[in-house]
Amino acid sequence: MKVQGKHYRTIWLKEGSENIVSVIDQRWLPHKFIVEDLKTFQDFIVAINEMHIRGAGLIGATAAYAMYIAVLEYSKVNVDFDQYILDASKKIKATRPTAVNLQWAVDRQLNVISQASSIEEKILIAKKTAMKIADEDMESCMKIGEYGLKLIEDISKKKNGEPVNILTHCNAGWLAFVDYGTATAPIYAAHEKGIKVHVWVDETRPRNQGAMLTAWELGTEGIPHTIIADNTGGHLMQHGQVDIVIVGSDRTTKCGDVANKIGTYLKALAAKDNNVPFYIALPSSSIDWSISNGIIEIPIENRDEDELKYISGMIDGNFKKILIAPEQSPALNIGFDVTPARLVTGLITERGICSADEAGIKSLFPEKLIQ
Amino acid sequence: MKVQGKHYRTIWLKEGSENIVSVIDQRWLPHKFIVEDLKTFQDFIVAINEMHIRGAGLIGATAAYAMYIAVLEYSKVNVDFDQYILDASKKIKATRPTAVNLQWAVDRQLNVISQASSIEEKILIAKKTAMKIADEDMESCMKIGEYGLKLIEDISKKKNGEPVNILTHCNAGWLAFVDYGTATAPIYAAHEKGIKVHVWVDETRPRNQGAMLTAWELGTEGIPHTIIADNTGGHLMQHGQVDIVIVGSDRTTKCGDVANKIGTYLKALAAKDNNVPFYIALPSSSIDWSISNGIIEIPIENRDEDELKYISGMIDGNFKKILIAPEQSPALNIGFDVTPARLVTGLITERGICSADEAGIKSLFPEKLIQ
Repeated sequence: MKVQGKHYRTIWLKEGSENIVSVIDQRWLPHKFIVEDLKTFQDFIVAINEMHIRGAGLIGATAAYAMYIAVLEYSKVNVDFDQYILDASKKIKATRPTAVNLQWAVDRQLNVISQASSIEEKILIAKKTAMKIADEDMESCMKIGEYGLKLIEDISKKKNGEPVNILTHCNAGWLAFVDYGTATAPIYAAHEKGIKVHVWVDETRPRNQGAMLTAWELGTEGIPHTIIADNTGGHLMQHGQVDIVIVGSDRTTKCGDVANKIGTYLKALAAKDNNVPFYIALPSSSIDWSISNGIIEIPIENRDEDELKYISGMIDGNFKKILIAPEQSPALNIGFDVTPARLVTGLITERGICSADEAGIKSLFPEKLIQ
Repeated sequence: MKVQGKHYRTIWLKEGSENIVSVIDQRWLPHKFIVEDLKTFQDFIVAINEMHIRGAGLIGATAAYAMYIAVLEYSKVNVDFDQYILDASKKIKATRPTAVNLQWAVDRQLNVISQASSIEEKILIAKKTAMKIADEDMESCMKIGEYGLKLIEDISKKKNGEPVNILTHCNAGWLAFVDYGTATAPIYAAHEKGIKVHVWVDETRPRNQGAMLTAWELGTEGIPHTIIADNTGGHLMQHGQVDIVIVGSDRTTKCGDVANKIGTYLKALAAKDNNVPFYIALPSSSIDWSISNGIIEIPIENRDEDELKYISGMIDGNFKKILIAPEQSPALNIGFDVTPARLVTGLITERGICSADEAGIKSLFPEKLIQ
């Protein structure tokens, strides 16, 4: 998408360079737009772990580039390659345990790297695969936008062109992917087509990705939106002010249970209680084909309690962190929750929309669910 | 309750004074403990409106004292008394439209004041009534504690003395009343009796009354607690980590619909979905006997969007406000939502526990619902 008139992706190989990967350092948004150059494998570990970059698709693409840089750095060490690259893959996988794209991208790289014979070939294929994963991510998001557009278009027609009110949680926008985003892709597609939309942006505590990233994205694209506290969605739905909920997913089981940012489950319950359609927009790379029951089987990441007790923002032109709770009170910071498939109206994927169950998913991805 | 070893209520007539009312200025908690003296009627309007004091019971008691000060100030003006006191009552009522205790306390004062004949008598009865309302509030909270204690005790027995995990939203603690609180009263009673409890404290965006006030209260009393983002409760309930939810109420209809801090409805949905008992602790002064359907009939207060976009906290020993969203993005700040009675397990009142419906409420308060 465009930032100040210039087109950006969230990650790219730096122009004229073979070993520097540029990313938008999202910790400073919406206050500052900063591009960071990742030069070493360790830079990638820090960038993923400390959330300079975040979001299902972008974590995957970044992990893929990290594997490429790991292969490049092999010349500096004196160990067995297979052990070296396995160690590297484990280090990346450990940064964000809930994100399945990360596991998927790393495994895909491990596979192609192991098949190449020389180091030169391994470097070449790892680079090519990283770029391909980024391109595919973008293409998936575009297609999700096309399929999801239809849902918004239908509501717009029913409302005689009145703005369609869409609620989203966290950031499943282009900043969470390589471009376009998932939950936002249908919104961008609708806006481009001249369909009136208005987005309720959950601020998404504790890290405020909604208020800080989604609101910034939508503002930059000129899309009408309103930031709300995460507590607000239920009230809005009770009063007919939400036409559709679209959120992303960090991991979806083959039966349609969805791990997404903590709080998604509460919105799904409210949507069910008020007959509001509740959709998940996701590339199939975030489906975990090996598991069925999300509540039992998806590992959920606990993060540092300080992310809850302190909050960052702007004061007098500076970016600062303030304490918003008693210093001695403990806090628990759970990153994700699981929304059971029974609460999900449908999945918007790069191959179309399906019901959130094994039969629905199988109808779009038969090759993945051969039994 | 005690603060640094000394017993405090949240509001009291200043010792040795007839026209100064002291309150704990809650805007500075948990970082600073500051007592504010309210000396004029206008001081009260500001204190209620700008939330130096807040919470169902305390708003009522403060409004009652405000009416007393208004009568005292009558000597300074030259208008008809009836018109003067009616104007004053309207000004107070307009400060917080959702809180029914406020309406109730002001009407009670209007009634006794109108029955007294001389100004001297009006002053005397208004003072006496304000003190009585404060005392009654405290006594109600004590009784709510006694009745609610039984619920916690039963769970504790079932768990063989393992800690009872109680989730609460916002602050319905002693800071929200004159003493003890409502949702916290059973917790304080259980703790005093040696029953092991642990409280999940919803931080309660946007004003963070949970993280700032409830956590402080519980910490001061030495009660184990953990602050969580409002998004977290559903996940905890899915994983059996919440034994009971107890929250307060700003207004309850005669049929058991409950207006409480925005986000309460979402927790009630999650409790229902996971078979977790969901109780409302309330003095009957917050029941609105004139209405049935909360979603349609309870007025809901919208507050300033800056309460959402800016957040206050401590930095380098100073209390400051930082911007946590794009400055140009609009925000909507809805103060309360309504939880339908069908999601409420029971009401804990000063007369006992009843089901959240007209029959249940009538069984405890027959004199209020004569048909």
